[in-house]
Formats: sequence, C-alpha cells, structure tokens
Amino acid sequence: MEKASPLQLRIFDLNCWAIRYLSKLRQERVELIGDVLNQEGFDLALLQEVWSEKDYWELKKKLCTRYPSSHYFKSGVIGSGLCIFSRHQILDTFLYQYSVNGYPYMFQHGDWFGGKSVGLVVLKIQGIVFNVYVTHLHAEYCREKDAYLPHRVVQAWELGQFIQHTSKGADVVLLGGDLNMHPEDVGVRLLRGWVGLRDSFIAAEKVSVSTRVSSYEMNKNRKGMLVLTHSLIKGCEDGSTLVPANCFTSKNELHCYPQGIRIDYILYKGFSQYEVRCNSHETTTGTAPNKDIPYSDHEAVMATLTVAKTQTDELNHPTVDPALVDILNEARMEVRVGLHSAERQQYSCGRMAVLAVLLLLMQGAIGLTSIFGGTLQQPFPKFSFSLLSLLAVLVLLISAVLYLFHTIEVKMLQGTEEQMRLGLQTLQDKLSSG
Amino acid sequence: MEKASPLQLRIFDLNCWAIRYLSKLRQERVELIGDVLNQEGFDLALLQEVWSEKDYWELKKKLCTRYPSSHYFKSGVIGSGLCIFSRHQILDTFLYQYSVNGYPYMFQHGDWFGGKSVGLVVLKIQGIVFNVYVTHLHAEYCREKDAYLPHRVVQAWELGQFIQHTSKGADVVLLGGDLNMHPEDVGVRLLRGWVGLRDSFIAAEKVSVSTRVSSYEMNKNRKGMLVLTHSLIKGCEDGSTLVPANCFTSKNELHCYPQGIRIDYILYKGFSQYEVRCNSHETTTGTAPNKDIPYSDHEAVMATLTVAKTQTDELNHPTVDPALVDILNEARMEVRVGLHSAERQQYSCGRMAVLAVLLLLMQGAIGLTSIFGGTLQQPFPKFSFSLLSLLAVLVLLISAVLYLFHTIEVKMLQGTEEQMRLGLQTLQDKLSSG
Repeated sequence: MEKASPLQLRIFDLNCWAIRYLSKLRQERVELIGDVLNQEGFDLALLQEVWSEKDYWELKKKLCTRYPSSHYFKSGVIGSGLCIFSRHQILDTFLYQYSVNGYPYMFQHGDWFGGKSVGLVVLKIQGIVFNVYVTHLHAEYCREKDAYLPHRVVQAWELGQFIQHTSKGADVVLLGGDLNMHPEDVGVRLLRGWVGLRDSFIAAEKVSVSTRVSSYEMNKNRKGMLVLTHSLIKGCEDGSTLVPANCFTSKNELHCYPQGIRIDYILYKGFSQYEVRCNSHETTTGTAPNKDIPYSDHEAVMATLTVAKTQTDELNHPTVDPALVDILNEARMEVRVGLHSAERQQYSCGRMAVLAVLLLLMQGAIGLTSIFGGTLQQPFPKFSFSLLSLLAVLVLLISAVLYLFHTIEVKMLQGTEEQMRLGLQTLQDKLSSG
Repeated sequence: MEKASPLQLRIFDLNCWAIRYLSKLRQERVELIGDVLNQEGFDLALLQEVWSEKDYWELKKKLCTRYPSSHYFKSGVIGSGLCIFSRHQILDTFLYQYSVNGYPYMFQHGDWFGGKSVGLVVLKIQGIVFNVYVTHLHAEYCREKDAYLPHRVVQAWELGQFIQHTSKGADVVLLGGDLNMHPEDVGVRLLRGWVGLRDSFIAAEKVSVSTRVSSYEMNKNRKGMLVLTHSLIKGCEDGSTLVPANCFTSKNELHCYPQGIRIDYILYKGFSQYEVRCNSHETTTGTAPNKDIPYSDHEAVMATLTVAKTQTDELNHPTVDPALVDILNEARMEVRVGLHSAERQQYSCGRMAVLAVLLLLMQGAIGLTSIFGGTLQQPFPKFSFSLLSLLAVLVLLISAVLYLFHTIEVKMLQGTEEQMRLGLQTLQDKLSSG
C-alpha cells in the first residue's frame, strides 16, 4: 500500500437548480446530469439543490452501476438539497445544520425552508480515509445591501469549525459546494486561511502559470520562441460558475460582473502523510457539452486531484499566517453587524407583541364595561370591534413567534462571536509563542 | 512527558435546576455550588440547567481563580443551560444542537425552548488532548407512556455520532450530563456499545467488587477472616442521582423506584495509547455536605479518573460486540415509532389547514354574494360571521406553522433512521469480515 502509485480522483460538483414546478426544464436537465455522470465515470459527484427526493431516487436508479454508493441528506422543510454519489463505498454519514439560515417570513427567497446544512460522508479508498463534505450556503440576493451576509459568515465559520473538528481522523478532506461567496469574500478567506483548505481553481492556475513560465523560458532559451503549454484550467474565464452565456442565469445578478462570478468550489486538504495536488480544474461554459441547454443555472465544476504519500512531516506543522487575525476580525465584525440587526428586530417584535396585548386588554375592558355597565353605550359597532380583535390576536401571534425566532438568532450570533473571540485568542497565543 | 506519572483528574457533574423565578432557593443553591467548586478544586465542572446567563457570570466571577477557563453554550430561546468550568485552558469550543427536541406547544414541559445541545470543549493537559462533552437530553415526563422517547433516542444517537466524528484527534473523551435515561435504557446502551464509552459508576463498582474479593481471599488465606476494603463508590445506592431523600425531587417520579434512579452520568473513553481508569465515583445524598439543603433536585456526580499511557496497542482495535446489532435495531425501532407519530401529526395539521382554507373560501363566497347579489339576505349576523373568520384565520395560521414543524420532524427522523441503517450495515460488514 505504501509504495502504491498516487491515487487519482475525479470530482464533479454542481448546484443542480432542481426545484419542482419552478425550475425550467428540470426533468430534462436532471436526465442530462445523470447521463454525464454515467459517461464520465467520476469518483465522486457532489450535488446541491436536488430539492426533490424523487429526483434523487431517479438519479440513484440511473447511476446505481457506476456509483453504487450514495446518500441524500434530509433536513429542513423541503430537504437540504444535498446529495453525494460515490464510486467508493460510503462508510458513515453525518449532518450539521447551520444555526442561522435566513428568515422563514422571506418566502420569496425561501432559503430558510431548505434547512441549509453541511453533509459529511466518510470513504476509504486504497486505505486512505476521505472526509467528503458537501454544502450550500445562504444565497446572496443583493451584493450592495446584503441582509444575509452575517448569516452566511456564521455558516462559513460553522462549516470551518465542523470540518476542523470532524476531520482529525481523516487523511484527506474534500469540500464541494455552492458557497454563494466570491473568492475574495471573507467566508472563503476564512475557509482557506483558518481551515487550511486549498482551492482547486487557484491551485490549477498556479501550476498552469509556473508550467507556462518554465516552458516559456525553456523554449526561449532553446529556440527563442514562445510556446504556451496545455493549460490545466478549462472552461469559463476565472473559473466562473455563474456566467452570462448560461440561458438560465439571471442577467441582473451579473451586471457588475460581465465575465461571470465564481461561487461554486472544490476545496481540499491533505493531512498527516498525504499530499493532495490539483491536476486540472474544469467548468462547463454555458451549455452542457454537445447540447443546447445547460445542466443548471450554475456551471458544473470538475477537478482531478492526485493523492500521494509524502515522506516529509512538513504538513503536520503548518505555520500560522498573521493575516488570519485580520480575517477573523473582519468575520467577527460582520457577525456583530448581524447581531445588532437581530437585536433591533427582536426588540421591534417584542414591542409589537406588547402593544397587541395592551390593545386586547383595552378591548376586553371596553367589552366588559358595555356588558356590565348598563348605563354606557357600546362605543364601537360590533363588527369593527371584532375585526380589531382579530387584528390584535393576529399581530400578537405573529410578533410572539417572530420574537422567539429573533431571540434564537441573537443567541446563535452571540455564541458564534464568542467562539470567534476564543479562536482569535488561541491564534494570538500561537503567534506570540512562535 | 512520556515517563510522567499517571494524570489524575477530578470531575464534577450536576444538573443545577437553576430556572429563574421557578426553581426553589435558586440563588442560595447557585452560591452553594460555587462554594463547593472552590473548596474542592475539581479539574472540571460540567453543569446543566444553568438557564440564566446571569447565574453563569456570577459563578464565573466567583470561580475565576480556581477555574480560570470557562464556557457557556448559547442556543435555543433561553440558552442551552450548559456550561463548563475548567482549571485548564479551554482551547476550542463547538456546539451541536439536536435536530429534534420536543414540541414548542408543550409549554408545560418547555424542553423545546432550551435548545438542547451537546457542547464540546478541547483541552490539553500535560500534552494529552481531552475532548470534553457536556449535554442534557430531553426530559422523561411519564415513563409508562413516554411521548418523547423517539426524540431522546435520536438525541442519544446524534450525541454518539457527534462524539465519534469529533473525537478522532483526541486522546481522551469525557462526557458528563443529565441523559434523562436509566442505565439499561437503549440510549445509554448505544453510547456504551456503539461509541465505546465507559460508565464511571460501573467501572468503580467493578473495581470495588474485584478489590473486595481479592482482599477477602487474600485475608481468608492468610488470617482466615474477612476484611472488606474501602469502597470506591460513595453516596447513594446504585449511584442514583434522583433520590427520595432530596427535598426538591418530585416524589411522583420515584414511586416505582423507591431507592432512586440514575440519570446523570460521567462517561469516558481513552484513545490510542491512553488508558483511563475510574478511581472513585461519588454522589451527594439528598443534601449538600454539612448543609440542610441540596445543591439541586438532582444529586451531583463526582468521579476521579486516572489517565495513563499504555504500552499495548490493544485499545486501537476494539472488538465488535454482536449484541450491538440488537441495540441498534432497538433504537431504530424507537425512531420508527416516532416517525409514524410525527407523520400522523403532520397529516392532522395539514388537514386542519386545508379545512381552515375551505372555511375561509366559503365565507369569502358568502360575503361576496351578500355584497353583489342584492336579492339575497346576509345569512349570518355580521358579528358571528367575523368571529368565525377570526377562528378560521387563527386555525389556518397555527396549523400551517405546526405542519411545517412536523414536516421538519419527519425529515429529521427519516434521516436518523437512514443513518442508523447505514451504521447497521457497516457493523454487519465488520462482524462478517472478522
């Protein structure tokens, strides 16, 4: 086993946009996805937004030969949308639901109903233990005024913490998913800096550039001409996964990013004696290969990774980057902004509930007076009176439920901020001790 | 470090029953708890039901010298109630909220509002990594007809899975808490069998018995007389933590168990090269030592553990007990019972919501007819009509929210059942292969 040749893995990641009755050409696209997975024979397919279990079971049936092991993660009202198809046997699974995930009353966005989570499956391939994570974070509906940013930062933090705490027994960590964050966003920097995950796109780009340079120099030296070698990156520019060429992608979303944006990732990390390299990173480019429709409103991400045993112990003792302090502080600041907003909403709901109670008490008093105080006339017509009661009861019910909801939100944001503070402290201790 | 003498740890665990405005003599008892923790100087104090953060901060202030590191886990509407005070520096924390935890409409029980969770803190003592877990599972209100049993079994399963997945990097696992389960209950057997945790009471009891026997035999051989050695177990009979001698304990709860019941535990496990032994297990006996009131309605559990390096690799390869298959099947059966009940409730709520919508539609039609169909008379008085609308809207709102709630419950129970099925399969593979 120790002297075996490096293990090569091909991974497919896609946000499938498979919402029953809402997503365009859903059935055709799910079939297309099944076809490509069967044709290409990846080792792992990490899918998001497979909201209907029926679609999952159809895919499972279609893929049972090439991907004998699979798992669908159940959570929330309509499911987590997350599933994994694997060529290798899944040994164990675990699910972590993010503690905050938008608001149930934002029906038009609907993220809350999805029960956003991170799913973990454990695999053992050629004696190497893989912890494979698939996730989908809260969507970003307006980048300029992003009300969900604190929730997404909390989710990125919890994702990182979950990976850190659950991956100690693994040799290799793989994470695929729609993070709904641009590569320079604080959540992605947190995952790269704090958890030490490497981005398949950046890794492939680096190798491409260094190959090109060395090839250029070599060729210039020998023949005095430039020959660009075969790139390790294929597909959309900058690895974008939301691109204008995709007919399902909202064009409004991309008006500031005419070349598209990258929000779907394959990230990885090798532990102990295993080193992971990215051989190639590929995205689809607006349509499925040789078809006239895309797989989804997102582009698929495909990466080929090589896992090899290292002789050095270097990976066991990573150095701590001082820039991490700034990243953590930035994330903490976002959580604090979210905390203030949640406290304001909690206060508003509490006040509204108290006002509704006062109105009901007042109405009760008026009602009693008109019944027992024979000399007084009923001051309002019965109809308006009962309509007002209906309104007060409704306001009381709704504001009480929302008060509870925002109280939980405040608690979770406070808890995350506290965890981040402890993380910062541990980081600073490490930095000061050398 | 390798040749250091065995590490000795003293652990304190207590469900503090500190509910503001409801628990009797709360402030006096919290003070007493602070006093005993300061006097005894434990290494770790694992507390549950510290519902008010004010109480936590008061304890923290009081204990800051002897327990410089501490953490309060925030979750749910009123907090998780869980906190840890440690003599050793807490390096990291993590919280996992159980996916099911009773019902928000069971106000009289109130578990849902507590956001029941398992909290993890990571410590490093003399180079040994400790993962310390504190938890509090859903209460049992009626053992004969326990409506919460499926939820508690799911919580025990998730607790076990959380420990399994997060403890791979630890040398020693410690779990303290109020599990609300008797020692022979399926959840406790799951934690012992599936996760491999050892129960401090049973371990101390075994050592006591074997010490007594060997001491008896030794003494009989030498002097022909019986001398019982000092027992390793002190306190209540059978290690009970809910006892009739405690003035706050509900006597109804104990009518079938006149000697009390044991529902609070300290469990542990040593990994890799570390072996953990229980030197002694002690409980309080109805009142705080030298006081006339107890610390809580539960008895405190105190255990002294020794952690020593072993030379053998035996602990790394535990044998799989075939009885585990039965335990897992029993747990799975409980989850299925819960699933059927949740599906029934989901159906009832859905039906009720549909009926409310039909009533509202009917009322709308009658209203429109009376407005536009001039020939018809209003069939009901306006007052009754609007009262009926109020009722329909209320029923619709409440049943829709409950439908969502039970849908989530169904999803989580299905997910757990699926996880258990996979666990069983892996177990059977292991049993058949070796």
